[in-house]
Amino acid sequence: MSKQKLVQSITSKDQDFAQWYTDVCLKAELMDYSSVQGFIIYRPYGYAIWEQIQAYLNNKFKETGHENVYLPLVIPESLFQKEKDHIDGFAPETAIITTTGNDNLAERLIVRPTSEVLFAEHYAKIINSHRDLPKLYNQWCSVVRWEKTTRPFLRGKEFLWQEGHTAHATSEEAISETLQMLNIYDNLGKELLAIPFITGQKTEKEKFAGAVNTYTIEALMQDGKALQSGTSHYFGNDFAKAFNIVFQDENNQEKPVYQTSWGVTTRLIGAVIMVHGDDEGLVLPPHLAPIQVVAIPIQNQREEVINHLPKIEEVLKKTNLRYKIDNSTRRPGWKFSEYEMKGVPVRLEFGPRDIENGVVVLAKRNTREKITVKFEDLEKTLVKVINEVHQEMYEKALDHLNSNIRVAKTYDEFKEFLELGGYVKMSVHGEEAEDKVKEDTGATARVISEENLITKVCPVTGKDSNVTILFARAY
Amino acid sequence: MSKQKLVQSITSKDQDFAQWYTDVCLKAELMDYSSVQGFIIYRPYGYAIWEQIQAYLNNKFKETGHENVYLPLVIPESLFQKEKDHIDGFAPETAIITTTGNDNLAERLIVRPTSEVLFAEHYAKIINSHRDLPKLYNQWCSVVRWEKTTRPFLRGKEFLWQEGHTAHATSEEAISETLQMLNIYDNLGKELLAIPFITGQKTEKEKFAGAVNTYTIEALMQDGKALQSGTSHYFGNDFAKAFNIVFQDENNQEKPVYQTSWGVTTRLIGAVIMVHGDDEGLVLPPHLAPIQVVAIPIQNQREEVINHLPKIEEVLKKTNLRYKIDNSTRRPGWKFSEYEMKGVPVRLEFGPRDIENGVVVLAKRNTREKITVKFEDLEKTLVKVINEVHQEMYEKALDHLNSNIRVAKTYDEFKEFLELGGYVKMSVHGEEAEDKVKEDTGATARVISEENLITKVCPVTGKDSNVTILFARAY
Repeated sequence: MSKQKLVQSITSKDQDFAQWYTDVCLKAELMDYSSVQGFIIYRPYGYAIWEQIQAYLNNKFKETGHENVYLPLVIPESLFQKEKDHIDGFAPETAIITTTGNDNLAERLIVRPTSEVLFAEHYAKIINSHRDLPKLYNQWCSVVRWEKTTRPFLRGKEFLWQEGHTAHATSEEAISETLQMLNIYDNLGKELLAIPFITGQKTEKEKFAGAVNTYTIEALMQDGKALQSGTSHYFGNDFAKAFNIVFQDENNQEKPVYQTSWGVTTRLIGAVIMVHGDDEGLVLPPHLAPIQVVAIPIQNQREEVINHLPKIEEVLKKTNLRYKIDNSTRRPGWKFSEYEMKGVPVRLEFGPRDIENGVVVLAKRNTREKITVKFEDLEKTLVKVINEVHQEMYEKALDHLNSNIRVAKTYDEFKEFLELGGYVKMSVHGEEAEDKVKEDTGATARVISEENLITKVCPVTGKDSNVTILFARAY
Repeated sequence: MSKQKLVQSITSKDQDFAQWYTDVCLKAELMDYSSVQGFIIYRPYGYAIWEQIQAYLNNKFKETGHENVYLPLVIPESLFQKEKDHIDGFAPETAIITTTGNDNLAERLIVRPTSEVLFAEHYAKIINSHRDLPKLYNQWCSVVRWEKTTRPFLRGKEFLWQEGHTAHATSEEAISETLQMLNIYDNLGKELLAIPFITGQKTEKEKFAGAVNTYTIEALMQDGKALQSGTSHYFGNDFAKAFNIVFQDENNQEKPVYQTSWGVTTRLIGAVIMVHGDDEGLVLPPHLAPIQVVAIPIQNQREEVINHLPKIEEVLKKTNLRYKIDNSTRRPGWKFSEYEMKGVPVRLEFGPRDIENGVVVLAKRNTREKITVKFEDLEKTLVKVINEVHQEMYEKALDHLNSNIRVAKTYDEFKEFLELGGYVKMSVHGEEAEDKVKEDTGATARVISEENLITKVCPVTGKDSNVTILFARAY
């Protein structure tokens, strides 16, 4: 694949959003397919985005007292079956090692789809006293779930994630941990991804297998569909009882611990693509971007341009931004297209005339605006523009979200609003309404609203409303 | 397990080195066993050591132009079988996914024991032109090899590692890459682990399955056994031919690429334990240590001690060292034992009398020396001592290595020297001698010596010597 092919135009997102998405994934060189359906290759540029997310979260996890660990890839089948709700949720989609090159295994081993049971077993062993609590562990790894329909980053047979698993002496402390981590994820959206999330509790039907409560961050894509982007679970002491994770409290009473788990995945890369991207390709929020500024010299064989490069680099170094100077022999136009496709937030262009005039042209990827900057103002302008671009991208996404939350008082209204995309808020009669809405429209309960009931009677079932839900079609 | 139990004394290393090693692994809380034999749990303290190694290497990899990627966990069996030497080497110890919770798989999937074939397949797809070369990729992940005998960090059914895989236009460039990475590993020993490695080429018998040449870093443990601690392989274009990884050169000629791979694993943690540890537990080289300085206030309920803590912390912050102040209610003696077990390089102690005298007591873990330091000199003393301790530990290990390399001119001498531990250098008649030495003594060829032949006749076979080898018993 030559660079020329790389920058070929992609499908317009208005024309075919799904194809546009796949085009961006491939042409921005974020990923590639492997020979096993559902297992993708994270290419350097895609993996670098994940590393930025890791760095942000590792920092927040550490600030809040969490420690990284690594537990085994495999779970003995008997261990997996100890918590009934959990096994029911995951069993169908497990991948199972049954044999080695030499011998069949005595017990089948499940490739972890998530590690609750492994942490539970370990905690049962290392927790004895109230002095051992809390345990605040996190793990970075990949997990395997045998999904039938797969899409790059959004749903795969294997994906990368972090999974936090904590154990506490009291339910209050565990619930507070669950909400603290939800808040960290919400801030990850605000500060790094430029994505405004809707946060809140999942319904009984939509919660995690084995959890008492599941909290979620939900993002709205440009096509009007919602994307669950991370979850934080409160487990009560169900796992503790199944795995006998007990501690002696200060009065020497034996008590079960209270647990949580929480995770985000490489799906966040999918969210970034679908929230910010445009018909030129990826648009990366500047604090997330592996390359924040790309500098492209025009007529770079001319002496005055060659002489100017060290000066540009000196300024770029001072900004502490992640930058790249592309001084290759390719034509500037090809470079522009490539870095636009890759969503680099800011491009600098300068040719002989700019150098003569003491200016640099700065192009913003998000608005495609061009600004002529005096060379002596470049350093402070760059820092300012990077922050501005983040703010602009966040606000644009927030506007899109806010203008796509509608309130339905009748079922017809609900269906009509659903066609417009985004969330529809409706007060309903619990699970029965959720089932019917899903069957009729394909929409699911994304999060429980904490507001008062909108209608006393459920527009779907005609029964008493008991909960207000934000519904949406979702990935 | 209460803290009291944690600091119970461990087996003496002179008495039972293997048991001492296991005791340190467990009691320094580096790891724990899981319920599947050979799969260990990397506990926070052990994982933090690995994260220091990762940070060091990621930095060096980036400086030398490498990029991180992530490829699938699984390899279709048909793909695995494409390179014959490679499959022969790994097939017996592969773990194989044959089924999911729902269905048997159409094709069996091998859990990666190493990812050469996955990189080869990907490279065949993305490399087309000389402009696409070199590709310098690295991956951090875990791999699975179904080993029968396992020991924490040294040999496991699953272990963590980095695997670099590169593709080049010429053999010269690929060989130079192989040696560059070997050099980076050698420096990792010198600069971070305080371990002097013997570096060099493996014999034909000991080289990696599918490689043309394998280079190794070998460390010498305190019990006199060698430990292969990392390898760098030159593949020529065998994989390129098997997987059709070709490129158009500048004259539009189609050519196969030349490849390398190189890796180090969590085995390095085992090397650090066995090179530096003592009967009090782990002794961590200071640049590697997750906690470089621990400060332990004595009589920490007294007001003058409480008031002094912020001043100590201010100094510690200024040093930029990784520090911990343990102000818990446990008795200082317990704390001393615990941090000694965990190998924290420097301990600070200060009680009311020290505060009155304007001093702090500094204890070095490696030599167990205590130094009284004036409070105003603490910052610069700490920085100096940290560097000194690294140097002392490296030199001690180097002395041990240098005094345990012996030259044998007869087979009897060889056997006698071997009993003393360490390496024995002998000129032999290639593979035949290697086989016989292994059968007779259990020692293996660790690395080929580049020096001249010691004896013209091989003491083992009586045939002509054609190579000088460093033999040792090894892990």
